[in-house]
Amino acid sequence: MNNEFTMVTGAEARLAIRDGRHFGPTAGVATGYVQANLVVLPRDLAFEFLLFCQRNPKPCPVIEVFDTGQTEARLTAPSSDIRTDVSKYCVYRNGALDSELDNLLDMWNDDFVTFLLGCSFTFEYALIENGIRLPHVESRKNVSMFITNIETVPAGPFSGPLVVTMRWIPADKVVRAVQTTSRFPSVHGAPVHIGDPHTIGIEDLSNPDFGDAWTPLAADDVPMFWACGVTPQAVAMSARPPLMITHSPGHMFITDLKDEELAVF
Amino acid sequence: MNNEFTMVTGAEARLAIRDGRHFGPTAGVATGYVQANLVVLPRDLAFEFLLFCQRNPKPCPVIEVFDTGQTEARLTAPSSDIRTDVSKYCVYRNGALDSELDNLLDMWNDDFVTFLLGCSFTFEYALIENGIRLPHVESRKNVSMFITNIETVPAGPFSGPLVVTMRWIPADKVVRAVQTTSRFPSVHGAPVHIGDPHTIGIEDLSNPDFGDAWTPLAADDVPMFWACGVTPQAVAMSARPPLMITHSPGHMFITDLKDEELAVF
Repeated sequence: MNNEFTMVTGAEARLAIRDGRHFGPTAGVATGYVQANLVVLPRDLAFEFLLFCQRNPKPCPVIEVFDTGQTEARLTAPSSDIRTDVSKYCVYRNGALDSELDNLLDMWNDDFVTFLLGCSFTFEYALIENGIRLPHVESRKNVSMFITNIETVPAGPFSGPLVVTMRWIPADKVVRAVQTTSRFPSVHGAPVHIGDPHTIGIEDLSNPDFGDAWTPLAADDVPMFWACGVTPQAVAMSARPPLMITHSPGHMFITDLKDEELAVF
Repeated sequence: MNNEFTMVTGAEARLAIRDGRHFGPTAGVATGYVQANLVVLPRDLAFEFLLFCQRNPKPCPVIEVFDTGQTEARLTAPSSDIRTDVSKYCVYRNGALDSELDNLLDMWNDDFVTFLLGCSFTFEYALIENGIRLPHVESRKNVSMFITNIETVPAGPFSGPLVVTMRWIPADKVVRAVQTTSRFPSVHGAPVHIGDPHTIGIEDLSNPDFGDAWTPLAADDVPMFWACGVTPQAVAMSARPPLMITHSPGHMFITDLKDEELAVF
């Protein structure tokens, strides 16, 4: 990350990305502003994908859905342009990665519907503020992610297992971690499971399905599991839509919302 | 209300309605079970209505959305039938009331999408449990409802002002009323305004736009305002859809969810 963009606003960060002055992952960029996962789908799949999000709010917390063809995040990032304000995009065709792009200007279509979904950066910030160390944040690596045996509630062509993130939490901070993340339902919210990974179909915590493996900092640390934004992307891809566009992992869309504005109380 | 149905389950109440053994308003029926507002729209309006709900979660808290043509509330009331399990339906054509029906069996269409939206019965129960008297509940009359100067966030053809309910709350219970209703975001949640009604464009608390007028029980009672489920119905009607079906006021759909299950913490 380019440190010059740590303390800027969400709008300033978007402009730097649009102008090509910032092009890396966005972790740590515009600290305190809400970052979002991006999913763009053709209009004829949008209703059932929104239904899927409504039925699975923990893995698919909706921050904003655009009108068909709309390019500006009117509610959460006025004057933004979704075609230029993410530094790297992934284009999937029939469920397979087709290309990575720096912008969507040449391929934008008035038939596209854009979804901004909450990401865990916001609640990780809250965990850290509550004295919980997160080694993957400190070292700028990836959290551990696992495919569980918990099925999402299907909608139309969208179905599949819940993907979760795992964080080791000190035993005396487990209750605080539940409370802290419960305040943020629009960025995955309360954990889905605490403790024994086998209960939710995870065999080996040292062998994550995505991201990096982490060992506990202390012997009595407890594994806690939260719904993960990889779920809707995995589910959408397995539906093999003719076209789907997402952000490239780690290259999020930055809104004008402050993290604390997402807290329900 | 027929008192024989006060202590039954949600499923038993639906069966009594389906069989014609209960046909009145549902306030007090199946105490402790979540009751829902009903909106049925043709498929081609469903995406934009769901978008409207997503953008306006306080007046339009979504409990469940059915697949196109689906008649069973699979998630919140398994084995229910939305065509028979509400005791009175209103059919609107081009925004005007066309007929009232006891069931939808003859007019059901596989193109219909059903929305169940949260209703204030759940949080009123919580207010009462917290020692707050609600005269309109005690006397089985209607809460006061007002059209405000607060605009909803539009989606497609759906737009219009926020409608609120008003309840007089004892001054020493105002904070508790905020806390209590904040626990229930899926049934309107925290209030939208406390105090001076002029701030939100309400001229005269003794002259509600819908429902009955209420005077405070004590001189220092404070008017508190919550988003109201009449909002999505008013907004949907003003969009003049060729066809829309709702429950008749007070004749709600009763789910298998317990009120407390809707609490976020």
